[in-house]
Amino acid sequence: MIILKSALYTAFVTYDNDANAKLQNNETKPMDNALYRDYPYFADIQVMIFIGFGCLLAFFRLYGFSGMVFNFLTATFAIQWAILVQGYFQFSHAGKIHLGVINLINAEFACAVVLISFGAVLGKTSPVQLLVMALLEVPVFSVNEWAALKYLRINDAGGSILIHLFACYFGLGVTFVLYRPRLNEGHAKENTSYQSDILSVVGTLFLWVFWPSFNSALTLKGDDQHRAILHTFIALSSSTLTAFALSTMLNKNGKITMADIQNVTLAGGVTVGASVDMMISPAAAYALGVMGCAACMLGYKYLSPFLARHLRIQDQCGIHNLHGLTGLISCAAGICAILTIFTVFSTMGVAALGGILTGFVLKLPYLASPSDDLCFD
Amino acid sequence: MIILKSALYTAFVTYDNDANAKLQNNETKPMDNALYRDYPYFADIQVMIFIGFGCLLAFFRLYGFSGMVFNFLTATFAIQWAILVQGYFQFSHAGKIHLGVINLINAEFACAVVLISFGAVLGKTSPVQLLVMALLEVPVFSVNEWAALKYLRINDAGGSILIHLFACYFGLGVTFVLYRPRLNEGHAKENTSYQSDILSVVGTLFLWVFWPSFNSALTLKGDDQHRAILHTFIALSSSTLTAFALSTMLNKNGKITMADIQNVTLAGGVTVGASVDMMISPAAAYALGVMGCAACMLGYKYLSPFLARHLRIQDQCGIHNLHGLTGLISCAAGICAILTIFTVFSTMGVAALGGILTGFVLKLPYLASPSDDLCFD
Amino acid sequence: MIILKSALYTAFVTYDNDANAKLQNNETKPMDNALYRDYPYFADIQVMIFIGFGCLLAFFRLYGFSGMVFNFLTATFAIQWAILVQGYFQFSHAGKIHLGVINLINAEFACAVVLISFGAVLGKTSPVQLLVMALLEVPVFSVNEWAALKYLRINDAGGSILIHLFACYFGLGVTFVLYRPRLNEGHAKENTSYQSDILSVVGTLFLWVFWPSFNSALTLKGDDQHRAILHTFIALSSSTLTAFALSTMLNKNGKITMADIQNVTLAGGVTVGASVDMMISPAAAYALGVMGCAACMLGYKYLSPFLARHLRIQDQCGIHNLHGLTGLISCAAGICAILTIFTVFSTMGVAALGGILTGFVLKLPYLASPSDDLCFD
Repeated sequence: MIILKSALYTAFVTYDNDANAKLQNNETKPMDNALYRDYPYFADIQVMIFIGFGCLLAFFRLYGFSGMVFNFLTATFAIQWAILVQGYFQFSHAGKIHLGVINLINAEFACAVVLISFGAVLGKTSPVQLLVMALLEVPVFSVNEWAALKYLRINDAGGSILIHLFACYFGLGVTFVLYRPRLNEGHAKENTSYQSDILSVVGTLFLWVFWPSFNSALTLKGDDQHRAILHTFIALSSSTLTAFALSTMLNKNGKITMADIQNVTLAGGVTVGASVDMMISPAAAYALGVMGCAACMLGYKYLSPFLARHLRIQDQCGIHNLHGLTGLISCAAGICAILTIFTVFSTMGVAALGGILTGFVLKLPYLASPSDDLCFD
Repeated sequence: MIILKSALYTAFVTYDNDANAKLQNNETKPMDNALYRDYPYFADIQVMIFIGFGCLLAFFRLYGFSGMVFNFLTATFAIQWAILVQGYFQFSHAGKIHLGVINLINAEFACAVVLISFGAVLGKTSPVQLLVMALLEVPVFSVNEWAALKYLRINDAGGSILIHLFACYFGLGVTFVLYRPRLNEGHAKENTSYQSDILSVVGTLFLWVFWPSFNSALTLKGDDQHRAILHTFIALSSSTLTAFALSTMLNKNGKITMADIQNVTLAGGVTVGASVDMMISPAAAYALGVMGCAACMLGYKYLSPFLARHLRIQDQCGIHNLHGLTGLISCAAGICAILTIFTVFSTMGVAALGGILTGFVLKLPYLASPSDDLCFD
Repeated sequence: MIILKSALYTAFVTYDNDANAKLQNNETKPMDNALYRDYPYFADIQVMIFIGFGCLLAFFRLYGFSGMVFNFLTATFAIQWAILVQGYFQFSHAGKIHLGVINLINAEFACAVVLISFGAVLGKTSPVQLLVMALLEVPVFSVNEWAALKYLRINDAGGSILIHLFACYFGLGVTFVLYRPRLNEGHAKENTSYQSDILSVVGTLFLWVFWPSFNSALTLKGDDQHRAILHTFIALSSSTLTAFALSTMLNKNGKITMADIQNVTLAGGVTVGASVDMMISPAAAYALGVMGCAACMLGYKYLSPFLARHLRIQDQCGIHNLHGLTGLISCAAGICAILTIFTVFSTMGVAALGGILTGFVLKLPYLASPSDDLCFD
């Protein structure tokens, strides 16, 4: 186990030495304003990735002494890897990757994709499997993103298609291959404590608070970015209120469940993504938030059990509801040019196929074998 | 209970549909700089409202599985409501509310007013009562703010009068009506745990760290805002040191009490509010912090018990000390033009009257009846 | 004990009244841009000092009900003190200290120095001793910083020499004097809980996330600051991955230890400090991160026990590894002008001497005597 891991890290360090060689003569002379335009959004997204996702994962004791630490490791790994892969496809000129804060933002988006996909398989994969999944997902994501932006020239400011839909269908592809029938009856270790609930609410709140920065980081500057921030805030807030209302109505005794708060309140941020910088009017943003929330809530209640039982898709954290259904609504709401529709389906196809292949890699005997208890503890 | 709540939410959703109609043809073409000027402060205030207040309320188990979640619900509700009400009074032209990040900042201030007022009645009101209180307080606050800014043209950059004094006297008005004699003897469930103490200290720290952004978000840009940030930092820091010193001196054994840290350290931020952008000199800011802290500390020790016993005003979290006394000191320190004095007293009057009326609404039998245990759990 | 403390505070408040007199006629008319250039970095550093360090110290129950609260007190105290001392040396013109947000940033750096030095003596000093240490360290630091910047004109954007090396050797000087042989066998109260581990990981993450702001706050604006942010991010991320890999390899069973995550992941941020704004290429930043991490990790494993046993230097939190060794690597990586080398050694000498003298002051009987249990509880 240790040997495998050190092999993994040795391979990784070598690869990064290559990267260094590529970057070495790099002329890093960014425009003054590029930094000041991008850095505040980068800082916010840093908080979302490391604190927000970290706290959300804190409740998972399977990944060793703290899901937060595992999130720390994976996020750093994925960002570094994405800087290189995306750099190769999108930011290389004359054989050099030109590095700026904007690359870091793009790499953190790739990292978010990986962390979202994890949601489908958390609890039935070992840490090493998850690292391999990150290793494989980043290139597939980068190629799909590069192709869509370069050849199809679609507008997807908030990343509903290229981030959320991709992450969702990749994750579903992986979980489809890793199907474990016995898990449908529930698992003894899935319960959480009062303390871990508090932590994951804090994580949700950090994601909620900085989501406008996430959705607007890559828009055009000026009024486009202003609209993106307003729409994201409005959609998040309407989806939050809808989530509380629906949670009260759908659950017995009018109790609000923790899972609803943690997941469904964020649905509006995804739903508004594909059209976040357009002149869709605040009212439309509000409606998108409500619709996304309703779809997400109903998905948790009816679609997830259906997928698990009949299609062999066990979606542990329900990413199909929070990122799949809402992503589709978002795309429908964006101006549906032929190319956008094509991008939606090709992204879903590429993601699902990549996920399925990754799933088979993860099933290779020497990856699946490590006992989780020995690895991180 | 569920029916009441769904009725509340149905009414709410209808109302927001109205809002949509109003906003629909809105021309959201903000100036480029408006966003970049305002967004960093908005992001900081977001953290204060959702993380800071959320963690402060985390210790309250009465409001269901987590005060943090209840804070999330109320804050979202109040901000959305305030965008409409304030928009109607202050930001509407030609029948349309013109929406920008600046509106969101104003709405978060209205939300802060509601959350401060809650401090007076926490523990003896049901969640539904608190939502109704938010529903009623936002319009009263908005009318008072609009009248003071439009007709009296006062300067209240840090909101000592319009935010803190208003919130305080509104809350006291409500708690005056909801007087429960038996609570004066203390309550078994009021004690907190080590863990909830840590969380509320984290909440206090987030409020402390970003308070300069709160006090300076609506000042003139340039040196006014620079002064506002410096004064707020100085006043907060002097009031923090004074709080530690006084806490050591006033308490037996020289022990520092948790409540002092959570509340009194923030007094300086309020005291400096009304004159935060003026040329009052750093020394005056320092002195204001010390005075505010001392008044707040003595208020907790002597005034709060007096109010509870003799004036039927049970101020659970002592908002009269942290927001009332300090607000008055702040006003006295501001240039006392006749109009400012008039604003102070009219704000206190409007707030107290609004609070008393709201208190009577909250006493209506179908609002007071819900058992807290059944609602959020 | 109380009398001593109130005496301390009375002395402090008097002194600050003097300060007020000095500042009173101050013309605070900052350039517009100065605020907008500096404030975002100030806000980030605020979070690092109060939330990041606070959470890191939360696990220490010796300092009363919460290390977080003690961090709050000390940080506020040190920043206020540093504003005056640094102001006297660096920002005074015509007998007045000219105050701006940039002073606050500098003061927070001085505060960081104090908090780093604390790491060497935590657990064997009383709160009052630590406050006295803060009182004495800030002037020594300020004089050294002022002399180095004014007369030696060195470039130390990230503060590897003036902040990290100074803090390290000052702390080692103090701990050398306060040597307690019996502590080498370990102490019963040193163990931590699951909950405090989570909190300190959150603290580490906040430091990690905002470290680019820390390292770039005082660089030249424009491409220098852009490079500083990129290099810091790259070095942090490479040192984090190296820390995970080394932790797995060096520890039995391949388990990752908590202490490694909390400390060693941050090593890259220090190592890259002295050359953070130079054209060292991203690859060099990556390599510096790896080297810093390796040195830090090996320091914890071999050097710290050696220092404790043979040189009477008990370095509780291993600051010599995280700030000393890495600081030296950082200096070696910076362009080694004669003056830089001179600064390195003079800083180490001044720091160690100041620390030793401070250690003797802390040993004065009326400071050492207070029982920790009575003081903060």
